[in-house]
Amino acid sequence: MKWIIRVNTRTGKITKQEASAEERRWGGRLLVSKFLLREVPPTCDPLGRHNKLIIAPGLLGDTLVTTAGKFSVGGKSPLTRGVKESDVGGEAGKKMARLGIKALVLEDIPERAVTKILTITANQIALSDSPELGGKPVSETIQLLRRRFGGQVGMICIGPAGEMKMASAGVAVTDVQDVQIRYAARGGLGAVMGSKGIKAIVVDDAEAVPVQVSDEALLREASKALAQAILADPKTENRHRYGTPAILMVANEIGLLPTRNFSAGQFEKAEEIAGERIAEVIGARGGEGCSGAPCLRGCVISCSNVFPDPSGKKTVASIQYENIALLGPNCGIGDLDSIAELNRLCNEVGVDTIETGAAIAVAMEAGVISFGDAQGAKDLVRQIGQGTYLGRILGNGVVITGRVLGARRIPAVKGQAIPGYDPRALKGNGVTYITSPMGADHTAGNAFETAQSINPIGKENQVEISRRLQIRAAILDTMGLCLFTRPPFVKRPELFAHFLRGRYGWNVGYEDVQRIGIDALETEREFNRRAGVSEEFYDIPEFMREEPLPPRNSVFDLSLEEVQRIWEVKIPNDMF
Amino acid sequence: MKWIIRVNTRTGKITKQEASAEERRWGGRLLVSKFLLREVPPTCDPLGRHNKLIIAPGLLGDTLVTTAGKFSVGGKSPLTRGVKESDVGGEAGKKMARLGIKALVLEDIPERAVTKILTITANQIALSDSPELGGKPVSETIQLLRRRFGGQVGMICIGPAGEMKMASAGVAVTDVQDVQIRYAARGGLGAVMGSKGIKAIVVDDAEAVPVQVSDEALLREASKALAQAILADPKTENRHRYGTPAILMVANEIGLLPTRNFSAGQFEKAEEIAGERIAEVIGARGGEGCSGAPCLRGCVISCSNVFPDPSGKKTVASIQYENIALLGPNCGIGDLDSIAELNRLCNEVGVDTIETGAAIAVAMEAGVISFGDAQGAKDLVRQIGQGTYLGRILGNGVVITGRVLGARRIPAVKGQAIPGYDPRALKGNGVTYITSPMGADHTAGNAFETAQSINPIGKENQVEISRRLQIRAAILDTMGLCLFTRPPFVKRPELFAHFLRGRYGWNVGYEDVQRIGIDALETEREFNRRAGVSEEFYDIPEFMREEPLPPRNSVFDLSLEEVQRIWEVKIPNDMF
Repeated sequence: MKWIIRVNTRTGKITKQEASAEERRWGGRLLVSKFLLREVPPTCDPLGRHNKLIIAPGLLGDTLVTTAGKFSVGGKSPLTRGVKESDVGGEAGKKMARLGIKALVLEDIPERAVTKILTITANQIALSDSPELGGKPVSETIQLLRRRFGGQVGMICIGPAGEMKMASAGVAVTDVQDVQIRYAARGGLGAVMGSKGIKAIVVDDAEAVPVQVSDEALLREASKALAQAILADPKTENRHRYGTPAILMVANEIGLLPTRNFSAGQFEKAEEIAGERIAEVIGARGGEGCSGAPCLRGCVISCSNVFPDPSGKKTVASIQYENIALLGPNCGIGDLDSIAELNRLCNEVGVDTIETGAAIAVAMEAGVISFGDAQGAKDLVRQIGQGTYLGRILGNGVVITGRVLGARRIPAVKGQAIPGYDPRALKGNGVTYITSPMGADHTAGNAFETAQSINPIGKENQVEISRRLQIRAAILDTMGLCLFTRPPFVKRPELFAHFLRGRYGWNVGYEDVQRIGIDALETEREFNRRAGVSEEFYDIPEFMREEPLPPRNSVFDLSLEEVQRIWEVKIPNDMF
Repeated sequence: MKWIIRVNTRTGKITKQEASAEERRWGGRLLVSKFLLREVPPTCDPLGRHNKLIIAPGLLGDTLVTTAGKFSVGGKSPLTRGVKESDVGGEAGKKMARLGIKALVLEDIPERAVTKILTITANQIALSDSPELGGKPVSETIQLLRRRFGGQVGMICIGPAGEMKMASAGVAVTDVQDVQIRYAARGGLGAVMGSKGIKAIVVDDAEAVPVQVSDEALLREASKALAQAILADPKTENRHRYGTPAILMVANEIGLLPTRNFSAGQFEKAEEIAGERIAEVIGARGGEGCSGAPCLRGCVISCSNVFPDPSGKKTVASIQYENIALLGPNCGIGDLDSIAELNRLCNEVGVDTIETGAAIAVAMEAGVISFGDAQGAKDLVRQIGQGTYLGRILGNGVVITGRVLGARRIPAVKGQAIPGYDPRALKGNGVTYITSPMGADHTAGNAFETAQSINPIGKENQVEISRRLQIRAAILDTMGLCLFTRPPFVKRPELFAHFLRGRYGWNVGYEDVQRIGIDALETEREFNRRAGVSEEFYDIPEFMREEPLPPRNSVFDLSLEEVQRIWEVKIPNDMF
């Protein structure tokens, strides 16, 4: 991967230049942070001329390493007003990587609102007007593009919410057979894409030149070892069978499952929406439903699913823990079909399910509809797509929803909705929400995996754990690997250096790999410092410091001073 | 003035303690900044438990010095997220001062939404439930309270917008005969009052003990000299006759009058809405209409008016330049009766006319209604009071309106709408908007008065002028004097020291007075620094740096670096 492609969405000018030696060592999340800090004025309007949408495959994006192929979408977030990197599976990232594209940078904004598509092949990169796609839901957009470009291209697109520049809009990506819609969901990057008038990006790697790696044998060996380590982990089978919803019953048991706008940590209907129940329903209904599907080719975990309606027709793919937690219990909704339909609607409209579930619950608390009103909730998501005033309020995320509706309890940190782990019952995540340059984001350092070994409502080791997990997440997001490659991190960390040596011939050890993660975090923090959204200015929502969370009745009680020590605490190497 | 009164709106506990020696030297704006920095966590939720609403008469509030009696309302702003002090005329401040109240501090928030009133007499301070006032427009609230408390009390209250915690809600104050409704309008302090469940504050100074001043003769002499200096100034007569709208034709001529969402600086119907025209209409219609009224007793300028409808019945009092500029030309509305009615509606609903005019114009540009649609605009203001979804969007100010509606051009700095001086054609005001701790606020340092002596579209001296004016504004806001006491600042600055010596016996010179202003600004800046809203993170809206403003086709072109020099530039003493 050596090409940096820049598309000026105002002038239409497209340039393709070779990455410098320094840039070649960047990928995915690290590249996003470096480009942002170098090129985007930190205080700029996220939807204005000076922001950029940066799309970058991970460093291993063009390899066959399992789970590699996730890619980063980044820019200044309209939600957090700071750096934002959101990564995603699907096929487009692998195809970009196979075309040798290190980064695709969308710059400036058009003079007037337009609807364009960007097509990328080995030989040509072109912008074209596609007014017929204007306002189209995501799956229809994909169908229309598929008809035009055939079955082999990868696609990245936005829904109506992104076109309307709503701050909870995500960026959608197709999987191999248009079964799943994957999302770089968080932080409103769909709105940034929308501000640039780009409805979709079509990536055709048919004529890609085969990739030359530095040490094929080393890469193959490390790749095999990674797959083995993953497969040997007891959690993998669970993930394969039940997907991310496998954790729902545990989350409920710990008492951290957001319920009715974060007013409780347990939901009385948890069993009816848990991973086991999903697998059961999928099995019983048959048809298009399935479990154990990959989000991108070559993943040995394959934790995705296709959730069918009672007739066996696909409702949504894939239904995941976060979506269930926020659209389900957090809205008082305990019916799987309704949650799946809400998830589908969010995917069609093009909004983050976490942000949307949180916003709907705040609206419920404000009396717009009642908790548990699934039909009402579906109508609200449809209104987001229609751009009604209420829909626009909700589509701009939980903070704007809360402010506009005069709500007291707004579950967000740094402008972004808190995901499916109430920080009062999983304090390590609270530390991550406050200190991560991404704001409230479980993928930036999720302490859930440590909830068995570290008391989740104790204060001990939460800061250290968050730091360790944040660095690991930054490494994986830079490599383009899935967060579920945890086992080798614990048992065979040297593999990550082997990947880089095998792929690129870099003379690196695991300590250098760690430095990559730290570099990404430091670069992001510097951008945020200059943007005025340093962690020193943000805290857990006040109600979470005062209102005990049933059933364990804990509050978030790490002081800001304790939390802010995070970048200074010493962590033994074996904690990475 | 020696009493600090604290009202805990959660527990109902009320305390009255004597001010310390240090606190006694604070008043008005300086007191607000000192209390905020000392007592309010800078990153707190402005509508949560930790913010405070601070009401403080100016240092001269209990004297007969002309224009003295303005008082400060302050707190952390829900609009700018930083320090906010908004000062206002009317009678309540003088009455508080006569009761010896240095500061009234509303603390915490009630567990549930309540509607209470706070009554203050010489002998008792009490909170009481007044659910019958819930949701009532401002003038009806005043009438109901007047019936209960009689003709002599001063009142401070909020409208439905404040009760709904809308970020553009202001704090209303009665004048001597309930003719004018004066507003501490900016920054959303009405929402802070609303968050505390206080609908109104009634101040009865009937049994106040006469004030003992230190040097009666010196105070009287200085007071007389101030009045003479004001009366000797040629602008005073103009202000008395035409009010603040006297400047409208000049603003139009310079080309800085916000027109159609800041897309032009001249309005084709300027003459029809100018000060001269207003005086003419008032004269011709007679009835309740009048010009040359004071906003508080004892003002020798008396720049207020009562604008009548064609039958002579009062529409609104007082109609002022800012209100006209933002609700009129900026919305493409050139009909005085419509503008007066819009102003009246804003006063009833309880929102800042500047913020509201700016928000409506953004909504017009977004296609909600058309520019010039006065009936539509009135309906929008009514919707704010009704709390419809669109009303709630607009009531939360121009930035939320712009974001929710997906607007490109949002005329705000630091979260607050730009007032009636486009910074592209009056660059000194641009410097103030960026650097003032208050955000875009003309009263924080208005370079309009220098537009004849300093080229308003040149870059020269704009930074110096802004600094000089900001310090002066901070001094006057601390003393509780009107900004129109400019003439003695130029000709007899020593008077301001005489006031403090006469009233308090302080051994101060004019340099000490300057230090008061600088101290207020520095304290405010420190609060903002800790809140994450330092001036380094804010700029003029991007479109104002790129889009030339007709007719002079200037852009705002002082770099942020040039602007940020402001606190370091040297200004000769005679520039104060």
